Amino acid sequence: MGAPPGYRPSAWVHLLHQLPRADFQLRPVPSGFAPQEQEYQQALLLVAALAGLGLGLSLIFIAVYLIRFCCCRPPEPPGAKSPPPGGGCVTWSCIAALLVGCAGIGIGFYGNSETSDGVSQLSSALLHANHTLSAIDHLVSETVERLGEAVRTELTTLEEVLAQRTELVAAARGARRQAEAVAQQLQELAFWRGVPLSPLQVAEDVSFVEEYRWLAYVLLLLLELLVCLFTLLGLAKQSKWLVIVMTVMSLLVLVLSWGSMGLEAATAVGLSDFCSSPDTYILNLTQEETGLSSDILSYYFLCNQAVSNPFQQRLTLSQRALANIHSQLQGLEREAVPQFPSAQKPLLSLEETLNVTEGNFHQLVALLHCRGLHKDYGAALRGLCEDALEGLLFLLLFSLLSAGALATALCSLPRAWALFPPSDDYDDTDDDDPFNPQESKRFVQWQSSI
Amino acid sequence: MGAPPGYRPSAWVHLLHQLPRADFQLRPVPSGFAPQEQEYQQALLLVAALAGLGLGLSLIFIAVYLIRFCCCRPPEPPGAKSPPPGGGCVTWSCIAALLVGCAGIGIGFYGNSETSDGVSQLSSALLHANHTLSAIDHLVSETVERLGEAVRTELTTLEEVLAQRTELVAAARGARRQAEAVAQQLQELAFWRGVPLSPLQVAEDVSFVEEYRWLAYVLLLLLELLVCLFTLLGLAKQSKWLVIVMTVMSLLVLVLSWGSMGLEAATAVGLSDFCSSPDTYILNLTQEETGLSSDILSYYFLCNQAVSNPFQQRLTLSQRALANIHSQLQGLEREAVPQFPSAQKPLLSLEETLNVTEGNFHQLVALLHCRGLHKDYGAALRGLCEDALEGLLFLLLFSLLSAGALATALCSLPRAWALFPPSDDYDDTDDDDPFNPQESKRFVQWQSSI
Repeated sequence: MGAPPGYRPSAWVHLLHQLPRADFQLRPVPSGFAPQEQEYQQALLLVAALAGLGLGLSLIFIAVYLIRFCCCRPPEPPGAKSPPPGGGCVTWSCIAALLVGCAGIGIGFYGNSETSDGVSQLSSALLHANHTLSAIDHLVSETVERLGEAVRTELTTLEEVLAQRTELVAAARGARRQAEAVAQQLQELAFWRGVPLSPLQVAEDVSFVEEYRWLAYVLLLLLELLVCLFTLLGLAKQSKWLVIVMTVMSLLVLVLSWGSMGLEAATAVGLSDFCSSPDTYILNLTQEETGLSSDILSYYFLCNQAVSNPFQQRLTLSQRALANIHSQLQGLEREAVPQFPSAQKPLLSLEETLNVTEGNFHQLVALLHCRGLHKDYGAALRGLCEDALEGLLFLLLFSLLSAGALATALCSLPRAWALFPPSDDYDDTDDDDPFNPQESKRFVQWQSSI
Repeated sequence: MGAPPGYRPSAWVHLLHQLPRADFQLRPVPSGFAPQEQEYQQALLLVAALAGLGLGLSLIFIAVYLIRFCCCRPPEPPGAKSPPPGGGCVTWSCIAALLVGCAGIGIGFYGNSETSDGVSQLSSALLHANHTLSAIDHLVSETVERLGEAVRTELTTLEEVLAQRTELVAAARGARRQAEAVAQQLQELAFWRGVPLSPLQVAEDVSFVEEYRWLAYVLLLLLELLVCLFTLLGLAKQSKWLVIVMTVMSLLVLVLSWGSMGLEAATAVGLSDFCSSPDTYILNLTQEETGLSSDILSYYFLCNQAVSNPFQQRLTLSQRALANIHSQLQGLEREAVPQFPSAQKPLLSLEETLNVTEGNFHQLVALLHCRGLHKDYGAALRGLCEDALEGLLFLLLFSLLSAGALATALCSLPRAWALFPPSDDYDDTDDDDPFNPQESKRFVQWQSSI
């Protein structure tokens, strides 16, 4: 019943993690996450290179298809008005491809927002962890300062007041020693003080990168949406120059789609390796970055019954010392106040300080317990390995759909364009209304040519 | 630096909360969340009734439009082949309306998944809170049982061993009293024991309702998608019977859309009232349901510096008693073991128990601290008031778009249908391929009639 249910790798992580990896010499590479090793980097680059291969193949296919279409057209019988058969099929397949592309764009928007959600969950968990760590620091400083102040002023006053009775002075000195011991023990509980790694900084860096990634995808999606809509408009209005411009733009977006697919595939594969067993990697990395002892880090990253609280000993010692100070103060109140009434004020003030210190101590126990920080760790992992990975897979699906749709459109567009009526009876400037009678007539003409 | 940044009402909550509300007699109703008051219920019902009004108005508009179209058509010149002007506009507006409806369906799917996310965040926060509460209960039971066992066996053995020296027996009896006091104090820390409200049960109920809500929306969205697609198919294939069936289905979905819009609007308004200041309502409700004292509930629901820990006193007393037991056991070990070696075994066993109890005590302090449970409360509120409300607003947008699109489609469909070629030269059975030459010819014919 110790820790709440934490992060568990999803089915997608297992699936991606099980894909075989190879380096540039096509030797198999183990799928453990090791971004600093050259072999592993090569394996990820190879995954990204597969998308480059896909781009090359689809460009070759489009080129071959179009060359075959241009050169191997059956000779038209002279004077025949009817266009080659299958033109309607070409136009319709182009429209269907663009509609598939639009559906892919919808999926892309969803995936982009899902990834963004996951990453913002990660950075909010980091901010929360930062809050906890700085709260520990702040609480320790405050408590130690308050104890020091009490030792310097009230206990000194008390010793001066009680100077005549040595056994009472000894009790006050005992309380001073205990208070100093508590301050010492508490000082050592602020384990994150002076650590060079700031979760706040990491969260800010992650948010910064994510902002640009999000923006880049939104721009890509909008570009593709515009290309799809303007191509449909060009087909509907039979505007040759618009279709030509959009064919060139489609080629550009095709290259961008394959490029983003390569990035997404490599990131998804790397992320799945990380997410299949993140604890060890994160533990080692944090240990390198912070120099903290492994028992503290294991306590927070694992937080189960098997790992004991590394602060247990210090907390227990502080707790006992606080209880001892309390009983010493009570003894002093009983013994000294009847004889030295001026001792009452510093004693009451000391008891007040002790109460506040005990309250702070309980808050510190709560903050130091692994539950809170481990929950943040789990939330960060869930954000990265569930939401962000899922979003990445949606983005991958978007890239795949749009690459397919754009390749089909690129094959169809020049053929559809060839079916447009010749531009001499088509004036591009004076027909903005697709529903005017002339336009309808031209549309009918085009349709009848299909 | 006490509590982490919690829930803050979003701009949407403020906006919806500021809308005026009125009861059935149109008297203004305050916008505080009070679902048990009749006036407030009437205000929400009135919001829902607005959607009914919208449905009535749009049905009247459609009826008037179609009656005007049927009866006030300009008389066709006899023998004229050309259909009435504006037919192309009608067909295109019908197609545009259906495309807007499809975009609305996309928004609806997004909104439905967003709402579902929010509600699942709420129920996972409830499950987490339940885990914390039952962990407190479990830990208290375990610790009290362990202490009781130690008192019954080891301390009794110790007293028997030390029976010859009364001052040592007195020390052992002192330890027994302290242990019993600790057990007593700990018992009272399990504040949720015997409380009739189970967060687990609430989470299960919420998930159960949400499952059916989600399913109902998915079915509605799929129904509307099918209606849109089959209507488009009917228009493309000029199938009269398909268009007629889809007109009837559109009418049904229009009614469903307005109905769901009423539900969504009332829920969104009620939710915004709840979310604008949830603390007071939840505090009162929980107090009624659980009968817990308001200082415990305020501590967990507010969790700021102003509310002191209601367990502070008990925790401090337990802590002091544990420290006293420790010093008494140490004293006994120093005094008794040289004289009574058989006392060593129970003493070591008692110290072991004491260490475990101190560890459990620290865990209990961490669990009882408001930080963890307040974070769950904040997550539940964020799920309900940010994600679920946002999803609800997207669903509202979907209902609005689909109601508009379906009304437009219902106005246009019978007119577009009137433009189809007469059914005597149209055979509905042998033309499954929209690209066959006959079909193309018919399409051309239809297009030329526009």
